[in-house]
Formats: sequence, C-alpha cells, structure tokens
Amino acid sequence: MSSTISPLAPKTIPDMPVIAGVRLATAAAGIRYPDRTDVMLAVFDEGTSVAGVFTRSKCPSAPVEWCRARLKGARARALVVNSGNANAFTGKNGREACAFTAKIAAAAVGCKIAEVFLASTGVIGEPLPAQAFDGVLPRLAIEATANGYTDAAAAIMTTDTFPKLATARARLAGTEVTINGFAKGAGMIAPDMATMLAFVFTDAPIAAPALQTLLREGVTDTFNAVTIDGDTSTSDTLLAFATGAARAPRIARAHDPRLTPFRKALNSVLADLSEQVARDGEGARKLVEITVEGAVSKASARRIALSIANSPLVKTAIAGEDANWGRVVMAVGKAGEPADRDRLSIWFGGIRVAHKGARDPAYDEAAVSAAMQKPEIALKVALGLGKGHDRVLTCDLTKEYVAINGDYRS
Amino acid sequence: MSSTISPLAPKTIPDMPVIAGVRLATAAAGIRYPDRTDVMLAVFDEGTSVAGVFTRSKCPSAPVEWCRARLKGARARALVVNSGNANAFTGKNGREACAFTAKIAAAAVGCKIAEVFLASTGVIGEPLPAQAFDGVLPRLAIEATANGYTDAAAAIMTTDTFPKLATARARLAGTEVTINGFAKGAGMIAPDMATMLAFVFTDAPIAAPALQTLLREGVTDTFNAVTIDGDTSTSDTLLAFATGAARAPRIARAHDPRLTPFRKALNSVLADLSEQVARDGEGARKLVEITVEGAVSKASARRIALSIANSPLVKTAIAGEDANWGRVVMAVGKAGEPADRDRLSIWFGGIRVAHKGARDPAYDEAAVSAAMQKPEIALKVALGLGKGHDRVLTCDLTKEYVAINGDYRS
Repeated sequence: MSSTISPLAPKTIPDMPVIAGVRLATAAAGIRYPDRTDVMLAVFDEGTSVAGVFTRSKCPSAPVEWCRARLKGARARALVVNSGNANAFTGKNGREACAFTAKIAAAAVGCKIAEVFLASTGVIGEPLPAQAFDGVLPRLAIEATANGYTDAAAAIMTTDTFPKLATARARLAGTEVTINGFAKGAGMIAPDMATMLAFVFTDAPIAAPALQTLLREGVTDTFNAVTIDGDTSTSDTLLAFATGAARAPRIARAHDPRLTPFRKALNSVLADLSEQVARDGEGARKLVEITVEGAVSKASARRIALSIANSPLVKTAIAGEDANWGRVVMAVGKAGEPADRDRLSIWFGGIRVAHKGARDPAYDEAAVSAAMQKPEIALKVALGLGKGHDRVLTCDLTKEYVAINGDYRS
Repeated sequence: MSSTISPLAPKTIPDMPVIAGVRLATAAAGIRYPDRTDVMLAVFDEGTSVAGVFTRSKCPSAPVEWCRARLKGARARALVVNSGNANAFTGKNGREACAFTAKIAAAAVGCKIAEVFLASTGVIGEPLPAQAFDGVLPRLAIEATANGYTDAAAAIMTTDTFPKLATARARLAGTEVTINGFAKGAGMIAPDMATMLAFVFTDAPIAAPALQTLLREGVTDTFNAVTIDGDTSTSDTLLAFATGAARAPRIARAHDPRLTPFRKALNSVLADLSEQVARDGEGARKLVEITVEGAVSKASARRIALSIANSPLVKTAIAGEDANWGRVVMAVGKAGEPADRDRLSIWFGGIRVAHKGARDPAYDEAAVSAAMQKPEIALKVALGLGKGHDRVLTCDLTKEYVAINGDYRS
C-alpha cells in the first residue's frame, strides 16, 4: 500500500447507506501486511441472488474458478475477500485453500458451502495460509454490521492509495432501492499486487439470471473500458448481490421495463467505481479520457481507443505533459482497424492539434501546453470513416509506475 | 541522441568490407540536430535489384508509401535516409517532400526518379524541410565511397546510443559474396525518435522477386521477433539491395538450392542487427530472451512470447531484478492462446522457478537472484501442450524509458 494518496483521488468518500440484508466486518488476519486489516466478510440474508463477471485470463486464480462454479447455484450467503495473497497459480493447494475458507465461512454464517463466494488479491504463486481465517471468520460473522462498507473497502486494498466506494438509489416499481459498491485497483492489473476486485450490493429483488445480464451489460462501458497498463489479472472479479429485502415486486427478466431506472443507477455505480480505479492507476498523475469517433463501428472504435490507451509511448508523453499527437497516429495505425491517415483529426483538451493528415496550422501551442498541465486530459480522435464511437479511461505512465512494479519485491 | 552508450552494446564495431557497386556518403543537413550528420546517400551501380518489407501500420509515413510504390520497378540506383524528421503524418507536404528529394537525388546520381528509395526517422507530424537536401545530395553523390558504412550507420541514429552494423560472407555457386547491413532502433518504436530502419547490401546477383522472398522469410525470426514496447512505428523499413557485381550466376528463384549458404548468411546479418536493436532499447539495462515451448503451434508460441515480452509488469519486474514468475503466468493467461495453468513451468536464467501450476519447491532463491543481476536474462516457459516453440528478444522497462519518452519534447 502506497503512503501517498493519488493526486487524482476524489475529494470525499461517499456516506454509504445501509442495505437491508447485508452486513460486513473486517479483521487483521496477518496474511501478509502487518498492522492493517486484510480480510473482510460480508453476510447476506437468505434469498440473496448473486451474479458475477471475471477475468478473461486463460490462467485464472483458484477463487475465480471457485466463484464461477458456485454461480450455478444462484444464491449467496457469504463473501470472503482477503488482500495480501491472490491464491493464484497455487495448484492443488489453492483449490484446497478455497474449499477450506468456504467451509469455515459456511460454519460461521450457518449456510451451505456452495453459498460462499471468495476473492483474493495480492502476491501470485505463494500458498494462501487459509488457516489464518479459522479463528477470524466466526468472530466476523458475529461482529458484522450494516455500516461496514468503508472499512471493507479499506481491507481489500493492495497498492491502492484510497478506498473506492460508490452508492446510488433508484425507483423500482414505485419502491426506492439502494445500490452500494466498493472496489480495488490499481494496476489493471499488476497481478503481484493490484488485481481489480469489485463488489456491488442491492436490496432490489432481482433474480440471478436477470442480475447476471444487467452486470454483463453494465461492465461493457465501465470496467471493460478502463485500462491501466494493458495487463490482465488472473483474478479480476466483479460480483453483485441482491438481497431482495426491498418491498418491490421480484424481477425475473433483465429487460423488464420496470428495471430501467435500476439499470441506470447500477451502471452509474459501476462507472464511478471503474473511474476511481483509473484515478488510482499505479503511479498515475493524469486521468486520461480517450474518445474515438468516426470509426466504422463501436467495436472498431473500442479497439483503437484501447490501442491508444495501452501505448507506452502515448502514456509517457502524457506523463511529460506533451501533446504528442504523432504517437496517437502511431497507436491508431497499429490497432489494425480501418483508418485513413489523411482523414484523421486529433484533439487534446478540446484543442484540435491535427487535422486531415497533418498538424493543424491554427493550433495554439500555449493553450495546448496549459491543457496538458491539468490533472485530467481529454484526448479525442476523429477518424472520419463512419458513425462508430467509444470512450475509454486510462492514466499516464510515470517513473513511479516503474518504481512500484520494479522495486516492490526486490 | 543519448549521451550514454547502452550497457548492452556490443564490445566492438565490425570492420565493414567494401561491396562492389555500393558507395555511401553522409552530411549534416541541419534537419533537426546541431553538430551531427543527419543525411546519408547510398549510390548503386546499374543493375541493382531491390526488395523491402515495411511497417504494418495503417498510417504509414510518406517514405514508406514512396518505397512500396517504387518496389514494382525492382531496380535501385540511390537510397536517401535522413534522421531528425520522420516525414510521417505530414499530408500532401509529405508526399511532395518525397518527390522533391527523389528528384534531386536522381539528378545528382544520374538515374530515374523511380530508382530512388527513401527513408526518414525522427519527429512525426512536422513538415520535412526537404529543400535542405538540395545543396547536399549533389556533393554526396561525388564524395560517396565504398568505405562509408560506419558513418552511414551513425548518420541515421536518433535515440540510438551506438551505431548498429553487421557483415557476413557466403559462397554462391563457388563465388564468395558479401552482405553488409546497418540499422537503427531504438524504441521499436518510438515514433517521435526511434523508428526501426535497416538496410542490407550485397554483391550477390539475385533477382528482385527472389530477394523479396528471402527478405520476407528472413524477418520472421529476426526483426519480427524483437519488441521493445509493443508500439509500432509508422516508418519501419527494411530494404535490401543486390548489386550483382560478384562473378556468380544470377539467381532468379528464392528456393534455388545454390542460395542456401547465402540465405543463412543473410539471416545471420538480420539476426545480428535485430539483436542490436533490442540491446539498444530505450532505457534498456537487460537484454531478455523469451523462449516458449510446448505450445500448440509456432504461431501460438509467438503470440504468448510477445504477450510476455510486451507486458509492462514483466518488463518492470526484470528491471527490478525480480524473478516474478507470477507476472509471467499473467502474461501467458492474457495472450488468449491455449494454456493450462496446471501444466506451466517457468525458468529464469536456466533455473526452474515454477512447475506444474505452482512454485517449484526446489528452487534456490539465491541462485535465481544472482541470475537476475546479469545483463542478459533468459526466460523460458514450457506449456506442456504440444510441439510449438518460438523465441523473441526484448529488454526491460526502466525509469529511463519513461524519462526518454516523457521528457523529450517537454
């Protein structure tokens, strides 16, 4: 955990309302870090639905495999998350650690083992000392409180410099429902120390298949549109839990029109959390919003935006406050998507610096320079080919990133 | 141009033999840099064949488009290369600068405009002041000498810290022939300052279509197997010129068995030059050879090796002398290729650190630590799935890389 809070951190942490049917608690189990909490337990009332989306890695962690298998049951009563050890690439030991953790959590909460969900973040390839949870989880199940969100968000941090929380309310068929969420970054993904984990909780009564669809659709323009360094964790996990405690009619279908306000609120929570992950990218000093328009399709715009967002040369230029649109052209060119060099236009901070295949003769170097010094940088590319557009968030690539990732273990 | 020579630079620069039919000269045209040469002219005797391979960027530079069009003629009499300005993303001005440069070169050498080849490296998006060549090329055509290789290699450098030269000899149907080459890196590709350019010269009499095939096949395991930061220049160019001055029979077909020793020698020159590019990666302190075996195919092994080689997290770990095999697993997982976590084995410096899905219990931390302190790091991954194997070269990612690319223009 870094001692310096990211300069891009939100100015305030939201007040988190309670959600009927959700209780949380944290403890210091001593997995890796001294003098800090590193395990959190969430306990859910009976009847809670669950949905999840996970890393696309072909080498996922043991907890990811555990959760994927448990989603078939559609019900959750407990969530155990630890920081300090990712339980990834730990072989048979890793599967056993999951089974052991779920067993003691189930006993503590009084539920089936298959109703326990797990996530781990931290060092890869080291056995997870799950026995450390043994004395801890029974106590947490008793201590769990409806007000535990901020402590829970802090307990799951690794190289994050601030806890990431968001909340929203929506009307569901005339009843007010609440959505809370918290997440951790911060390398998207430094598997050694910065898996992306996010958890969302609501009292809305939504059946698991509908919740799954809402979540899958919701990540497209939020968590899946954020990149820090292009690396993909073995452990990325987003889980949603719906207790159904609100006195609203139970919703079975994701495209039920009564869900429209809820979907909007859920997406705002996912967008807020994912933006906070970008704001806390390892070593980040600039939040960068990349907009691509005029592409042949949205998918093409996304690939071009990610090519720009993941280019070390674009990211280092932004760290150096250099409106280096030549590198943006390079990143467009290497994306492999339809692009016509002589139709490209590029803006930094709303100022057009390149137009139709050449430097914009009208652009004011001083104005661009001032825009590049701001902590939030808008980079827009217009391709002039079609109507496809998209937006991704990233951050700059600084010497601090190299220090965090090069100096950590050595 | 950096003032400090890469610690990975070869200890000696090869003595370059002359090649009948090739003469070179350099000058300081003042394109961008004060007090150094920045343009080189190569003059070829009549009857010289030419072949070329170029960047896959969808937004190539004007000189790349110029060369691609000229290759159809199959003949070359002159090559003009400048550093300091890439003439990329310069619109109509860029095409005019090419045409103007070719015109004065053709007049100076006494050849057709279509027999002039061009390459430029340096800043993107700034108009190339091609008129600066006007007084220079006629003088260079007169001064050009058969011994100009080392000076030519120096004139095309940008962020390179050393000139890159290689030479080899081969027997062609009983006659000795010579192959010379030089190249520049060094970001593969920092389009602002580090396009990859390489030029190969031989007195072997080889027809252009056969030379083209040899070159295309030769780059697969040399230039196309080297990556610095995963970024792709708009200007990457490799050209080969065969004067035919050697008294050997003219070869028309690439798969003529008499070409076998020549092919081997050509590939050794391409391998030598491309390794030198990796040794001079921007900010590089470690040369990293990544070997993948047991993949389902060579293409799959290549994609996995490149995923590892381009991972910022793997590269920063190596910069930190950390045998962080967890990040290697991450990079294998994100490649999207068939991989079974529980069959993976990983070696650093010949020492197995992970085996069958978990840390190798036998590995000696002190021995691995000593291996990681060396300037050359061998990283091997065995997938245990099939017989596909491949090898790529890269370098580490250091704070110096960020400084070079973030501080350059600002």
